[in-house]
Amino acid sequence: MTKNQWKIWRYQEKIQACSEQSLLTSHQQNSVTLYNPVQQQNFPVEPIGKVVAPFTEKFAVPRQSNLTPSVLSQIIIHQPYGVPEAFAGIEEFSHIWLLFRFHQNLEQGWRAQVRPPRLGGNKKRGVFATRSSFRPNGFGMSVVPLISVESDAQQVVLNVSGLDLVNDTPVYDIKPYIPYADALPEARGGFADERPATLAVCVTPAAVQQLQQLSNNASALTQQVIEVLAQDPRPAYRKLADQDTNHYGTHFGGFNFRWHVQGDTIEIFEIRPL
Amino acid sequence: MTKNQWKIWRYQEKIQACSEQSLLTSHQQNSVTLYNPVQQQNFPVEPIGKVVAPFTEKFAVPRQSNLTPSVLSQIIIHQPYGVPEAFAGIEEFSHIWLLFRFHQNLEQGWRAQVRPPRLGGNKKRGVFATRSSFRPNGFGMSVVPLISVESDAQQVVLNVSGLDLVNDTPVYDIKPYIPYADALPEARGGFADERPATLAVCVTPAAVQQLQQLSNNASALTQQVIEVLAQDPRPAYRKLADQDTNHYGTHFGGFNFRWHVQGDTIEIFEIRPL
Repeated sequence: MTKNQWKIWRYQEKIQACSEQSLLTSHQQNSVTLYNPVQQQNFPVEPIGKVVAPFTEKFAVPRQSNLTPSVLSQIIIHQPYGVPEAFAGIEEFSHIWLLFRFHQNLEQGWRAQVRPPRLGGNKKRGVFATRSSFRPNGFGMSVVPLISVESDAQQVVLNVSGLDLVNDTPVYDIKPYIPYADALPEARGGFADERPATLAVCVTPAAVQQLQQLSNNASALTQQVIEVLAQDPRPAYRKLADQDTNHYGTHFGGFNFRWHVQGDTIEIFEIRPL
Repeated sequence: MTKNQWKIWRYQEKIQACSEQSLLTSHQQNSVTLYNPVQQQNFPVEPIGKVVAPFTEKFAVPRQSNLTPSVLSQIIIHQPYGVPEAFAGIEEFSHIWLLFRFHQNLEQGWRAQVRPPRLGGNKKRGVFATRSSFRPNGFGMSVVPLISVESDAQQVVLNVSGLDLVNDTPVYDIKPYIPYADALPEARGGFADERPATLAVCVTPAAVQQLQQLSNNASALTQQVIEVLAQDPRPAYRKLADQDTNHYGTHFGGFNFRWHVQGDTIEIFEIRPL
């Protein structure tokens, strides 16, 4: 609130009832003039930036943030928003919120009910009782650790970890995470009350060797893809099957990681360049 | 992901390298056709509902949610979104996120830097390092306890407490709060790391009597307004002044609560109908 606005709200005891009344009335008229609900509610939105992430396809993107802490992503802020002044002080916060849109699903519109994977994919819930992407307006929000901020005259880049978004996701806002308001560890989380179960992941010696020949970042990349696959990205009906003899391919960080399930373990048996 | 989409991702070991390659290529082409970044990122937004709250003016609205737990608000969901199916299962969650827009500030646009009240109103921070309302796209988000859900053929109404929003705020999404992803009590909250300090609030006997004559809900209303005023809604420069002899008026729940500061206590000395 600016000082000028404040002057309207504040009034002195010495003002008589009548003039005090006229002060309030003049403010109320002012509000009515400024606020046109229809016009303002449809104010357009535009992305302030976009995500650069090792996930190039939706398959295997974690269901929520912070499930894959070793995975690094960037948020590139465009002009006119990507200026250092607009981010001054953000490093004081350990975590930031991203407001984004599920851009790959927007054209498919919303659904009143969805089948959450956490419920085995065969029970329905209202879309507003889930974090599904098939929602009106198509917005999602994720909180992630802020690793560092890089900026120059062209753009601001935020380095984050554990982000659950596919490459090129449009970002509409960045907000600091405020623990006293946002952190409610005692909250009840319905069907998503617990972190999803994970599977063990192993890599065959042949696959290890393939990646070492293909990438000079093989060790970090292996750790990242292990966290990603530990989430078991298979659809619910496959997870629940008695036996799953299928072979899967996950595109991550420029490679196709090929794997299958052996008992309770995901085995990466081949790694190919994309 | 539908079963149909899934079939594209999955491939069998027995498929030869060549046909496997063509499967992947066909999927990639498919993606390119479906996804037009410019078109999708500017997909329009529309409110799914609006807030009904006892705050009819921005003055005295708490800075964050959950600072005034006795204050009750409603979110009225409009058609076509206000149908019971779309909210099925939401009662399993103790808290919900509201995605809203600071509608009264949208026309004023964004500012690269703002002066957070928590910093005394005289230090600047980048807008993205704050939860200020003067931000690109004008979105805010708040998490509040979900008290109950009422629905009929016309609309769905969500009853919540502790909401920090002014009456008529347009709402763009409702999401369940998922503690394992959203609750990060160990996060560092920068300049807003601690809950704001509160002031003691007292009500003079004359004011108590006035409210009892005006409202049959005087006791609950008094508790609510005490929580609101304990946040000390004065602007920073007034709080920091050696002495503040001003009288203030706060509109809440249909009444004008008039108060002043006596030492470290806010004294409500008069209550008038609006």
